[in-house]
Amino acid sequence: MDSWDAITARRQVRDFADQPIAEATLHQILEAARRAPSARNGQPWDLVVVSNKAQLRRLAGVWRGAGWIPASAVTVALVVPIAEDDRGRLMTRFDAGQLATQLTIAATGLGVASGQAACADQALAQQILGFPDGHECVLLIALGYPKTRPLVPIVRPDRRAFDDVVHFERW
Amino acid sequence: MDSWDAITARRQVRDFADQPIAEATLHQILEAARRAPSARNGQPWDLVVVSNKAQLRRLAGVWRGAGWIPASAVTVALVVPIAEDDRGRLMTRFDAGQLATQLTIAATGLGVASGQAACADQALAQQILGFPDGHECVLLIALGYPKTRPLVPIVRPDRRAFDDVVHFERW
Repeated sequence: MDSWDAITARRQVRDFADQPIAEATLHQILEAARRAPSARNGQPWDLVVVSNKAQLRRLAGVWRGAGWIPASAVTVALVVPIAEDDRGRLMTRFDAGQLATQLTIAATGLGVASGQAACADQALAQQILGFPDGHECVLLIALGYPKTRPLVPIVRPDRRAFDDVVHFERW
Repeated sequence: MDSWDAITARRQVRDFADQPIAEATLHQILEAARRAPSARNGQPWDLVVVSNKAQLRRLAGVWRGAGWIPASAVTVALVVPIAEDDRGRLMTRFDAGQLATQLTIAATGLGVASGQAACADQALAQQILGFPDGHECVLLIALGYPKTRPLVPIVRPDRRAFDDVVHFERW
């Protein structure tokens, strides 16, 4: 898919078809994520890729808004080290956002839909995902083929107007 | 450009050709940025797009590592409101990362190179960019055509190994 189409077709999907993602496709999506840019190329992230249905059902418990996670073919948990100071935590979170978007644009380009969910219960997340102490799961990215509408460029996105967001030369 | 190619061809560029970016191309890049996803669709961002050379030279002063900014055709300053609590600040920073990557992938897809620089001196940034109190500039994204190597997919990216980053089912 053209990059512009992938960027404009990405949307938050929570309802997935009962269809697995081919291994090569999943690998390519994860490879895109691994290549994400980060401050000083620090790459402060690990990805735990969950496809086991029983584990996906457990993952739904990490946040009240994550009940739809078991419908995904695969859910990628984005895990980061907890930085010692505020500045480090902010930089890590910025980089996590960079990875999330790189991953979801890559998925869309391959026809794979994605949905993001927060992670509130870190103790439960650690129990399920097995990440080391000193880390936290900042996001779940659910992947799968969309159950209803296919991924096509969105003509009128639900966003602030261009002229409201963009200022030329000076705010 | 294909989305996979755009994702894998994006790299940090600091040396730009003396060539302007056509208005329609710049508009498309900014339109992609405006469409970035954010937590609860909060869109906590404004973009100040600087192309005036004198202003670009001043912007170089906001961070010791930003001396190359004046070589860009255009630099986009990413400005966010300063959230009241830590949780809000972390979410805003995550969303800023999402916008940055959406913008730079869109640019790459159109053959436009990008480089990111931090912003340390907020007082100077506010003076140049004119953003309201209670906001901060979290990133400068420089845009232009690359002076040397064109943007082509990177075969061996300088990143942690796939198997180091990606864990299946459990860390």
